[in-house]
Amino acid sequence: MAPPPPSEQPDAAAPGAGAISRVLIVMAMEKEATPLVNKFKLVEAPASESILLRHQNELSKLYRLSAGVHSARFTTRFPKGAPWTRFYGCYKDLHLDLVMPGKDAVFGVDSVGTVSAALVTYASIQASKPDLIINAGTAGGFKAKGASIKDIFLASDVAFHDRRIPIPVFDMYGIGARKTFAAPNILKELNFKVGKLSTGDSLDMCSEDEEAILSNDATIKDMEGAAVAYVADMFSTPAIFVKAVTDIVDGDKPTAEEFLNNLISVTAALDVAVTKMVDFICGKRISDL
Amino acid sequence: MAPPPPSEQPDAAAPGAGAISRVLIVMAMEKEATPLVNKFKLVEAPASESILLRHQNELSKLYRLSAGVHSARFTTRFPKGAPWTRFYGCYKDLHLDLVMPGKDAVFGVDSVGTVSAALVTYASIQASKPDLIINAGTAGGFKAKGASIKDIFLASDVAFHDRRIPIPVFDMYGIGARKTFAAPNILKELNFKVGKLSTGDSLDMCSEDEEAILSNDATIKDMEGAAVAYVADMFSTPAIFVKAVTDIVDGDKPTAEEFLNNLISVTAALDVAVTKMVDFICGKRISDL
Repeated sequence: MAPPPPSEQPDAAAPGAGAISRVLIVMAMEKEATPLVNKFKLVEAPASESILLRHQNELSKLYRLSAGVHSARFTTRFPKGAPWTRFYGCYKDLHLDLVMPGKDAVFGVDSVGTVSAALVTYASIQASKPDLIINAGTAGGFKAKGASIKDIFLASDVAFHDRRIPIPVFDMYGIGARKTFAAPNILKELNFKVGKLSTGDSLDMCSEDEEAILSNDATIKDMEGAAVAYVADMFSTPAIFVKAVTDIVDGDKPTAEEFLNNLISVTAALDVAVTKMVDFICGKRISDL
Repeated sequence: MAPPPPSEQPDAAAPGAGAISRVLIVMAMEKEATPLVNKFKLVEAPASESILLRHQNELSKLYRLSAGVHSARFTTRFPKGAPWTRFYGCYKDLHLDLVMPGKDAVFGVDSVGTVSAALVTYASIQASKPDLIINAGTAGGFKAKGASIKDIFLASDVAFHDRRIPIPVFDMYGIGARKTFAAPNILKELNFKVGKLSTGDSLDMCSEDEEAILSNDATIKDMEGAAVAYVADMFSTPAIFVKAVTDIVDGDKPTAEEFLNNLISVTAALDVAVTKMVDFICGKRISDL
């Protein structure tokens, strides 16, 4: 008989005061995420799952519902129609939610890119009010800036490289450069590399993208990070960006081919890195990171 | 003394069975929207306003709350932190919500582009479950495809032109071409032009964008449409895209300059078009459009 799924609101011993309790892991591709789902023994939430939890709390406060209704367990769901998926579980002192934008309804591929990443991040923040977001994924790296295949980077900054709006101020909005949450102790303890991340909706890189990436002083390039950061910042949620290098953008191999060839092995390195990071986070406060 | 704001759930005489009742207008820029806000006498919802309405209904159903709680009026809000704005009101038989992504918290400019448009469309669909979405805005037009300044187009199709993912199937996902809701009677009655719309996050057009726009067979080019369509389709909400041409992309004037020079006068034409469309929609069913 299968064990019951883990509680949505673990009754485990409360961690130290102020310790991080809820961590939201945002990933774009199923192949990147599956090893982590297995590692953390997460279970999949029923299709369409998670929006209502916080709202229930707010409604309860607003209307002072009876204690019975207030304490009712909600099986919250992403709204019907959204392809987003969520896996959840308890790992040590943490409640983990791992969300993905899911498979495109028409084409069946992972819904990569900024729009989907922003949407699932938004819906998940509203549903679970995480203490911390980890956006984990693969990225292209620039060897001219010191990146090699399988390197693990934490992004110190994020920006967009494909939102060119040549009108004063709009130009800076388009680039959307922002510093990420600094995690000096994670960097020191886990020995990751650090660099700036540039985000765009294309896997390839046209000359205008390249110019913007150079201007962004980026060492790594992905398709979601700056969008996740935009939404996380909107709701003042600290977010860490951990990216594993699958392909060398300024190398001599075609990006798509190199990406696909390295995806499995680099994903393994990413998963080791995320596990170490989650282990490090356990029992810590935000200010300890 | 100022009149009270209009009811969120008008008690006006019920329109004919199946008639369109709730229309969500999604616009990107305040300058485009203000004349419509005035024309329809919409009032601004308090900052952060609108998410909870539907959830309250769902919660009520789930828990069979007392009639008193069930019928309570919610002053729903966009979540704190979101810059999105909403104006609402009754116009003839319709409840109108006009939403915008609002001013960027850092730069203070309208939050144009696909990520913001997708987010505010998503949050608004969840909040108000509209019968119909109208995405109204300005666009660049291609004279080679018959577009002129101040033309009003309905988009027959939308697609992205800056999401290049050269991996089989992912390539088609990136382009994300889809037919829009067909509104043949609006087209016939209001004498708009019809053409395909291509969307990207840049105001300018690099050669890769141009190639993709040609491949999308687009007559008009904007920065939000395909993202609004993506979210509308996710929740099976019919959406109409009405775009007024501010600049000729394949002309001899710089896009940003032409856009800014024509914004006010073209917006006036857009607002006339949207008003005519809303007048046409009043009392109609979706199948009448």
